[in-house]
Amino acid sequence: MTKHALPITRADNFPDWYQEVIKGADMAENSGVRGCMVIKPWGYGMWERIQRLLDDKIKATGHENCYFPLFIPLDLFEKEAKHIEGFAKEMAVVTHHRLEEKDGKLQLAGELETPLVVRPTSETVISEAFSRWISSYRDLPVKINQWANVVRWEMRTRMFLRTAEFLWQEGHTAHETREEAEEETLQMLHVYRELAEDELCMPVILGRKSPGERFPGAVETYTFEAMMQDGKALQAGTSHYLGETFARAADIRFNGRDGEMHYAHSTSWGTTTRLVGALIMTHGDDDGMRVPPRIAPHQIVFIPMMKDESKVDEIIAYCKELKTQLEAQTFAGEKIRAHVDMPKGETRGRYWDWVRKGAPIICEVGPRDLENGTLAMAQRHLIHEKKRIVSTADLLDNIQALLGGYEKALWEQATTFRDNNIHTGIQTFDQLKAHFENNENPGFVKAKWCEDEATEDMLKEFKVTIRCLPLEQSGTEGKCVLTGKPATVDAIFAKSY
Amino acid sequence: MTKHALPITRADNFPDWYQEVIKGADMAENSGVRGCMVIKPWGYGMWERIQRLLDDKIKATGHENCYFPLFIPLDLFEKEAKHIEGFAKEMAVVTHHRLEEKDGKLQLAGELETPLVVRPTSETVISEAFSRWISSYRDLPVKINQWANVVRWEMRTRMFLRTAEFLWQEGHTAHETREEAEEETLQMLHVYRELAEDELCMPVILGRKSPGERFPGAVETYTFEAMMQDGKALQAGTSHYLGETFARAADIRFNGRDGEMHYAHSTSWGTTTRLVGALIMTHGDDDGMRVPPRIAPHQIVFIPMMKDESKVDEIIAYCKELKTQLEAQTFAGEKIRAHVDMPKGETRGRYWDWVRKGAPIICEVGPRDLENGTLAMAQRHLIHEKKRIVSTADLLDNIQALLGGYEKALWEQATTFRDNNIHTGIQTFDQLKAHFENNENPGFVKAKWCEDEATEDMLKEFKVTIRCLPLEQSGTEGKCVLTGKPATVDAIFAKSY
Repeated sequence: MTKHALPITRADNFPDWYQEVIKGADMAENSGVRGCMVIKPWGYGMWERIQRLLDDKIKATGHENCYFPLFIPLDLFEKEAKHIEGFAKEMAVVTHHRLEEKDGKLQLAGELETPLVVRPTSETVISEAFSRWISSYRDLPVKINQWANVVRWEMRTRMFLRTAEFLWQEGHTAHETREEAEEETLQMLHVYRELAEDELCMPVILGRKSPGERFPGAVETYTFEAMMQDGKALQAGTSHYLGETFARAADIRFNGRDGEMHYAHSTSWGTTTRLVGALIMTHGDDDGMRVPPRIAPHQIVFIPMMKDESKVDEIIAYCKELKTQLEAQTFAGEKIRAHVDMPKGETRGRYWDWVRKGAPIICEVGPRDLENGTLAMAQRHLIHEKKRIVSTADLLDNIQALLGGYEKALWEQATTFRDNNIHTGIQTFDQLKAHFENNENPGFVKAKWCEDEATEDMLKEFKVTIRCLPLEQSGTEGKCVLTGKPATVDAIFAKSY
Repeated sequence: MTKHALPITRADNFPDWYQEVIKGADMAENSGVRGCMVIKPWGYGMWERIQRLLDDKIKATGHENCYFPLFIPLDLFEKEAKHIEGFAKEMAVVTHHRLEEKDGKLQLAGELETPLVVRPTSETVISEAFSRWISSYRDLPVKINQWANVVRWEMRTRMFLRTAEFLWQEGHTAHETREEAEEETLQMLHVYRELAEDELCMPVILGRKSPGERFPGAVETYTFEAMMQDGKALQAGTSHYLGETFARAADIRFNGRDGEMHYAHSTSWGTTTRLVGALIMTHGDDDGMRVPPRIAPHQIVFIPMMKDESKVDEIIAYCKELKTQLEAQTFAGEKIRAHVDMPKGETRGRYWDWVRKGAPIICEVGPRDLENGTLAMAQRHLIHEKKRIVSTADLLDNIQALLGGYEKALWEQATTFRDNNIHTGIQTFDQLKAHFENNENPGFVKAKWCEDEATEDMLKEFKVTIRCLPLEQSGTEGKCVLTGKPATVDAIFAKSY
């Protein structure tokens, strides 16, 4: 029971454990480029699943995909003063467009007149397009999305959580009225919630950001925050109501129903490959990754046992037949994804490889199973129980229930952990400080806040931030945990990624 | 019959017509960034369809998707001398990682020690990863693919065909033997052929590139070449057998079955958003785009006629019901994609908008149709015939046949055009030169070539290249069209994009 597939447990050292999960599951690795990672098939497969599921939701809510340039001319950034303040610091800048060989060395040549910024986000360039596309209320709303790579030159990077280059989707919309834009902002927040809850098995708290945590240029930023197993918060994505900020900077004006010119109200919303990191820290255990079934590139893996060489072909055929039959069934509205782990050279340890990868169901098939019509099955969340010998008929009859049971278990474990670690009894600043300074796993503190922007700085001392003001408010009256003043708003305080 | 939906015909001016198709179909537009375009929903939707179909084929042939960094350190490029020669010229280079505000202007700061090249292709960075991943023959083959953006600083750009940034997939594999790598190279060429023929309705010629046209560093480059309606060739994608070139540069070695260390044999293969340009120049007509049905974001579009306001809701409901019923059917193994063009402001001209976009089937529905259970249907390839009034029952019964008929018509028109414009009677250099100098639409010339690399330069004078040495060879003997020497190899000569 105490033997685990990873060399480090969560309790030993959570950040090191995180790296070991990624390595053990072969999800990604550091590249030779500072702060950039190579996303390997098992990690990228999860992102592809997230993409597919989220893209369907984005389209179902009336958005269309586009693609905008990677580069943004420097002078376009200067137009948007507020936006600059937030992003000016760390961006990759292209200054040359040619290399010339000289004595076997490459030299920079072709200096650009206007340097090009590698997009850290695309509000500026998309707003410029919107200003071309929109001239009348009849052109509104415009609702688009793009899947793209973006670059922010982060000093301290960690795979999936914070990398210089990352993959994301960014939605951008423009509307006739404030009300419509705010409705859009919240609609997309709920789309993200659905993804998190239904597909990532990850409970999240939806809320507004405090002013200090808002996106540069936004009037209101909404977030969905998840709790990682070390009690830190992870901002899993955001949805911004941008007001007229970008419309004024880029001159997105339209002739309104009243015959007057108006600025459009815009929104943007995004989520990233960081979600893969969130999955690790929500569902991983001391044996490695555990992938939610709707995200798993393979939901069930068959491992042919290779000891008896004379039986190998027959075992493989048996597994392939099972794969075919399973794939004729669906789970959560999609064809089941089964995989036969074809032996390639080294054949030992494959069972534990799939444990570390976190495939939901792992089956070993040996010569005796051929005779008996059976297999040895493990569910990833129950691997320390004895492997069950099940008949293939049972497997085929129960695959939905097996995947569903595993999914439910992940959801319940994550929700229980999260709920057990939201602390509501903290009343004063001293208590708050002591809580975060004295607890290794401090979780979230839910307390009242007076909404005075200046008070957010008080939290810096112990590296805590207001994660959000939850959409679900208790409505009770109390005292601000920072100032002691009367306050009604509930806020979530936490350390964060 | 002579009235057309575009202001310029193919015969007037082919390049201008091309731009008008893109504009009329609202597929893309130039951005504020030199050489970079904004791909709009109808154009991007075609690329998404291509991605989905090709990705399925790439996975079905045993490849897995990964993601590698956008940036390549300059010194990594220097390792690969042959590769540099081909690519060194035009690349975007990042030299700084910070911007600082000074008097309202942004200044470059944070100069990088090693400049970073924005990937023009990823052989270097992927080979470096392969050298980490591969140490034994048991690790082989490695077969991966990535969907990514790449940048080549082209001086003369044209939307979809040649842009500074473009989207593509690049497959990269490493193998134990030359034979296996060559087999992979050809397999992927045939995957591309399937995509072109079955899904893009675009006939292509598969062949080897002549030495002068090979990818830098490749031992053999295979291509699939399509003929555009102006008689020029378009290289739609390539598949390279790289030999040990990149393995030697990046030290991809493995312990072989014989106990000795060997260099791996690698391949790479890619195709790009240029395919969308190929679709335009293969299928477009003087009324705009015509999208092959498997690539069309919407296969059938319903336009509710809005004159009688009291009937609008009823007409929309009627269209939506038809959409639902059509989407319960499949075409070519996928759910049919129907669209109701919901009126948004301006309602005139919508029929012609969809003609210019090239939706396969366009239906108008008015008040009288509600009573009669009918609609007015046009097939995009027959729009100069009278619109047919068909019953909804007929439409539902015949949708596969209608889409299939349209698909067949596109394929046959393109194939007939291509076949009629392959000229085989040209025997001498003077004839060849005269043919290309005197014809506005010269098509392809198929003639013998002696395979002497030095002779390729003779074609530069009249801007022609050897497009490929077709895989299908006649095997006959003849005389080289360039030198008059005895030759057996058939080659395709053409002007090209």
